[in-house]
Order: sequence, then structure tokens, then C-alpha cells
Amino acid sequence: MLHGMRIELITTGTELLLGQVMNSHPGYLSGRLEAMGLSLARQTSVPDGREAIREVLRESWGRSDLLLVTGGLGPTSDDVTREVVAEFLGKPLEYQAEIHERILAYFQRRNLTPPEMVKVQAMVPRGMEVLPNDHGTAPGLLWEEKGKMLVLLPGPPRELAPMYESSVEPRLRATARSAVGTRILRVHGQGESFVQERCEEELRAMGVTQIGYCARPGEVDLRLKSGDGVLLERAVTRVREILGEAVYAEGGETMEEVVVGLARARGIKLATAESCTGGLVASRLTDVPGASEVLLGGWVTYSNEAKVRELGVKEESLRKYGAVSAAVAAEMAEGARKKAGADWAVSVTGIAGPGGGTPGKPVGLVYLGVAGSEGVETIEKKLVPERKTFKAMASQSALDLLRKKIQKGAHPFSKTEV
Amino acid sequence: MLHGMRIELITTGTELLLGQVMNSHPGYLSGRLEAMGLSLARQTSVPDGREAIREVLRESWGRSDLLLVTGGLGPTSDDVTREVVAEFLGKPLEYQAEIHERILAYFQRRNLTPPEMVKVQAMVPRGMEVLPNDHGTAPGLLWEEKGKMLVLLPGPPRELAPMYESSVEPRLRATARSAVGTRILRVHGQGESFVQERCEEELRAMGVTQIGYCARPGEVDLRLKSGDGVLLERAVTRVREILGEAVYAEGGETMEEVVVGLARARGIKLATAESCTGGLVASRLTDVPGASEVLLGGWVTYSNEAKVRELGVKEESLRKYGAVSAAVAAEMAEGARKKAGADWAVSVTGIAGPGGGTPGKPVGLVYLGVAGSEGVETIEKKLVPERKTFKAMASQSALDLLRKKIQKGAHPFSKTEV
Repeated sequence: MLHGMRIELITTGTELLLGQVMNSHPGYLSGRLEAMGLSLARQTSVPDGREAIREVLRESWGRSDLLLVTGGLGPTSDDVTREVVAEFLGKPLEYQAEIHERILAYFQRRNLTPPEMVKVQAMVPRGMEVLPNDHGTAPGLLWEEKGKMLVLLPGPPRELAPMYESSVEPRLRATARSAVGTRILRVHGQGESFVQERCEEELRAMGVTQIGYCARPGEVDLRLKSGDGVLLERAVTRVREILGEAVYAEGGETMEEVVVGLARARGIKLATAESCTGGLVASRLTDVPGASEVLLGGWVTYSNEAKVRELGVKEESLRKYGAVSAAVAAEMAEGARKKAGADWAVSVTGIAGPGGGTPGKPVGLVYLGVAGSEGVETIEKKLVPERKTFKAMASQSALDLLRKKIQKGAHPFSKTEV
Repeated sequence: MLHGMRIELITTGTELLLGQVMNSHPGYLSGRLEAMGLSLARQTSVPDGREAIREVLRESWGRSDLLLVTGGLGPTSDDVTREVVAEFLGKPLEYQAEIHERILAYFQRRNLTPPEMVKVQAMVPRGMEVLPNDHGTAPGLLWEEKGKMLVLLPGPPRELAPMYESSVEPRLRATARSAVGTRILRVHGQGESFVQERCEEELRAMGVTQIGYCARPGEVDLRLKSGDGVLLERAVTRVREILGEAVYAEGGETMEEVVVGLARARGIKLATAESCTGGLVASRLTDVPGASEVLLGGWVTYSNEAKVRELGVKEESLRKYGAVSAAVAAEMAEGARKKAGADWAVSVTGIAGPGGGTPGKPVGLVYLGVAGSEGVETIEKKLVPERKTFKAMASQSALDLLRKKIQKGAHPFSKTEV
């Protein structure tokens, strides 16, 4: 039944269409489905409101085998999904004391007084199955009819994710095929045209027919799809041969996961010295569970004084070359490595903008340094002159420097010689 | 024409439905529209593919006054939007040498050799207006017909945003009404039920009919909408009276923008000392242009050794209370303030998980400290035991501590007395 199943997702919530919040549900749910060899055919966002939800429900339910609907199950006045679905399916809403008790217990556990209005969350369209919510108050709801399934999930991601994984995914897993079919190679430092020119002709000649690209600033994902697992494996191997160490990860793995994984496996300790990225490199490393085994510490040295005082950058280097220079990047990395007692330390100094640029040193210019036992290397890059994109790209390049050093097994021999 | 205009957004791209990338277009574009008093009635994502794009184009174009379509204008084989739209409008694709030259010049400026395939981006459906792309190769395309407008924009956010702002928004602005109508109040440290119970009855009695809530971990946005500007202003004033300093911002302003704005205005200098947030507090501050006037520096002291060596945390405090304790949070904040010579320093130490929790100190426990000239205060919080949510909430609470201190005008008198 599920193979070739058409799946749609409706995300409800006025805030999703107001520029207020990022809608993380499509990414999360499609990722889970994709891992099972299923895919999302369409995702639609509509504002809170009876008419908008009714309209999209009617359109999508007709053509879907599985329809996921998120949001609008809360206790406040703008939460109307429960009611609209009851009306759409022609089922009266019925009070379920058991749900109400579970919600009251949820408040009790946190020493909070439940507001009266939570009672509405105990109303269930007759015959719908209730999915327990272990991380909030609104239960999910599920309806099956003629081999089709309609699932209502709460809007907050930290309630939705565990509910989906414990109550919805197991039902799909029972009949879904295993996840052969798609491989994604993540490539740093190359554009999509370059990757296509280098790889696509050969991949097509091998018989890979579905090839996709997703470009981000400074990198690209190459996506290969095929029903033939052996062919797919050969294709991945060939791409890795062609692109070499530019391929930094596969699938959904992030650069920081790769770096922390490699460092943990090899017992390598790291430190960071950041100016323009302002702590983002360290923060990304610490997004990864287990980072505490790897990251000894980091410095955010935004001012010149901090660079000198904390990392031992020379006053003379600052005077002669400026804070944004290869010399200062090198001294920052060496200082951080020495002070932290790390195997490798990475540094970033650049001009994030919007202010601070000059003709000789424009916004977007950055110097990166990486220090190990055998010395220090620096590189210069010209990145996108938009503050947040710049920070993201600079932090990615810094992590990539660490990755290449650790991957090459260029083992630092001593921690104290610098 | 534009008032009451129905606007839809179609975002194309298989990667948006694969859990690979976050779709930032709906948030960005709806935010821009909302600021002009316009709103997005619906957003739909479909994978790359002729049939999927054709189908949604047919549905949406029929009922929209303005239809925005993103993605699929690139040079690679999976970029088919241009062709599908040409076919949909019944226009042949025509080569425009001028566009091709502009693309070649774009590569030349970056000392890159243009791949042959970029030529496809110079193909234009006959009669469509070309929107120049100053940040990439794919031009945008625009079609007007019977008071309706269809706009194709490139997928990469850093190409889309400047194109939208320079070529699309001015056309809308000419006829759109000014941005009265919606006010959003951002509330830290309260749940949505609490905010509704405290405010909604009174707001409804005042005559505010459209009230919405958007809950995030540890905070909530309260959204008020009305055609009556005076009423709306009164309502906002009343909510601020009821909720007091829990209201930290209005509209799309972020906590870090509030903190940097306040500190700049008052000439206050800041420092950070982070353990479990790993640099996220500093990184968020440095997301804001002008942060360099405010942030002197920051420490990521993940290990106990770094806490002692860099910030002067006492060995005895670590032994007696542990790294996750009020005593250590206080010493971290005081150490950072003193070393950086800052007016206020904030510290964070906690257990982000998934490992490291004990019955007495569970995952999610965090201590925050804020040090000024008159001493140091600490608070204990129990946050969500999921690593990234925990980091986001802990960093938000740390920034909120700084905000309250700066807002209260609790001016530190000396920088050296600690």
C-alpha cells in the first residue's frame, strides 16, 4: 500500500506566513520519510482560519494516500484545526475525560496551575484515534479510511517530533520499503556548475538517471537516485574519486558532526580563536553531542586588546598588517593552541560588514589560520558581503580546515613546542 | 489593485522536500509583504519536475493576483521552471545575448571560467520582463496580464533577496497601503496560555478581534490585528502594562538586536563566559551589525581547566559545587567582566545532554550569572532536555538577563572594583 504512496503535508499557522518563524516541519518530516524510501509530493502552508484550512484540506485529502497536518491543536482561540477537521469528516467533537486528566497531570508535574481553556484539547472528533503527547498538552489525532490516512500533529517541533517518531512512523515502517535509492554527497568549496561539469556526463554514462543539485553559499549537495543499489554505490565511489577531499559528508551529516566525529575517533583536542565569527565556530562544534571530549575551549576576541591580552597577538602585527591579516590569523591560532593545550586550533579574522570595509580590505574578506604541532597555515578568502551569510561561510571554512587536517592524519606530535 | 490582493508563493526544489535544507523563502518574503500591509494567503513547495510545477502553477495562478515562484532557474539539468512557465504561458523561449554577456561578465569578475551550460539562463519566454541578478547568474522573470503578476525568482536566498527588494517590492509599494494593522509583541519567560489568560479578555473588551499566538520554547509572540490604528496602539500599551518587562521586543526584532541596541545607545560594554552554550551567546550578539562597539570579548570555557585558567573560577568551587552550579556561574561572570573590562558580563553553565545528567543535576539544568559593578546575580533554570533547544533557550535567557540589567539603567559605576 505504501510503496508509491502519495504523501502531502499541510502546515497551518499564521506565524508561518508572517516572517516570524522558520517552518521546520517540512525539513524534519520529509527527512524522516526520505530515510524510509518515501517522499513528500507537496507541502502547503496556510494561515490559521477555518476557511483556509478547510479549502486546502479538501484539495489535499482527495489526492493523498497519507496527509499530515500540523498546528492548530493548542488551547488558544486561534487553534481551529481540530474543529475544522471534525466538521470536514462529519464527526461530532466528544469530550474525553482521560485526555483531560493526562493534561492536568502534565501541568501538575511542572507545579503549574492548568488554565481552564486546556479542556478544549480533550475534545476528539468521534472515532479518531488519539496519539499521546509526552512533551506537551495537545494530543495528536489519526483517521484511517479506505487505505488512506489523515494525521493531525501539534505545531511545536519538540512535541511533534517525538509523537511522529513513536506513533506515526512505526505504522509506515511496517509496509514501507527500506531506504535504498538516494545518496547525497556534500561538497565544500565548489559551485554547482563545476560539480555538474566534472561529474554528470560520466554519471549518466554509468546509467544514473536522476541527478540533482542544491547550491548553498560556497558549497553544493549532489543528489543521486537510482533503483539499482550496486550502481548507486559505484556512482558514489566515482564522484568521490573525481572530487576528492572536497566531499566532506554524506546524507544529512553536517560539517561540525564530521569534525567532532573525526576528532573523537582519533583523540584529537581542539580550540578556537574567533574574531568576526563571534563564537559561531565553537557554538557549531558544541551543537554536536560529545563535543566536550573534543573542544577544550574558545576565545571570542572581538577587540584588538583581547587579541593581544588573551591570545598573545603582537601589537606590532596589528599595527603593521591590521587585525584582518594573515599574520594576525596565524598568531591567533597559535595563541589559542598553546593556551588551551590543544592539538589543533583554528582562527578566523575578517570583515563581516556592513561597515568596516575599505577598498584594500573589502567587506567579505577573511583570513583563517590553523595551527598544529608542526606550525601554522593561513588562507585568505573573499566571501559574500552579507553579515550572516559571511559568518556561516567563514565558520564552515574554518571547520573544513580542521576536517582536512584531522582527516589527513597529520598528527601533531607535541602539545607544547609552539 | 493591491489592497485585498491575494498573494501566493510557490517554492520549487526537491531539496526542500528531502529534509536537506531549511526553506527560508516563506519567512523572508512573507515578512517583507507583511511590513507593507500585504499578506501571503498560501505557500506551496513542490519538487523539481515538470509535472509537479505545471500542476501547482495552474492551480495557484488561477486564484492569485500576485504569484511568486522561486527556484529552478539555475543552469543544471534539474532546473526546469523557466521552461515549464514558458510552456504554461504559451511563449517560446528566446535567446537574449545581453543576458548571456552579463553572466559571462559575472564569471570574469571572479576570475572563473564560465561553464558552457550557463547559456540556458539567457533563454527568456517571449515578452517576459528580465529582472537583473547582481549576486548570481540566473536573472528573474516577470509577467503581467490583466492586473495579475507572475514573478520568477532564483532559489539561492542571497540572490533572491536583493532581486526582490530592488525589482519587485518597489512595484508593490507604489500601490500598497502603509503598514498599519498588525502588531506583534514578543514575550520571554511565559507560555501562551498564561499570556492569553492575562490579556485576551481585556483586549476583546477593548474591541480587538484578531488575536493570535505563536509559542516557542520558553516564549511566545502575541499578535494583534485591527483596522483601527488608535485602538491598536491602546491595546499594545495595555499589554505592555499587564506583562511588564516580559515583553522584550516588537515585530521581528530579535533579543540580540534589543541587547546590542540598548548597549550601543547607553555606551555599555559587554563580555560573555560560556560553557554549555559553547559560544552561541557571543555569536548571536555578533549577528547584529555594530556588535563590535558593544562586545569586548567572550570565552568558551568548556573544560574545568579553562574555567580556572581563563576566568579565575576557584578549584574549590568546582570541587564543592561542581561545574554546573550557581557558585561557578557567578565566578565565571565576575572573571569575564574583570578580564574584559566590561560593564556587564553574562555567564552560562549547564547540562545540554544527551549525556552528563544525574538525578540531582538532570539534563536541562542551567545556571546563569550576570556581573556588574555592584556585584553578581545568578539564576537557576530547568530547560528542555534536547541539546539544540536547550542551547537556544539558555542563550535567550542569558541575553534576557543582560537586557533587563541594561534596561533598568542599573549603571555600573566602575570597571575595576570587582
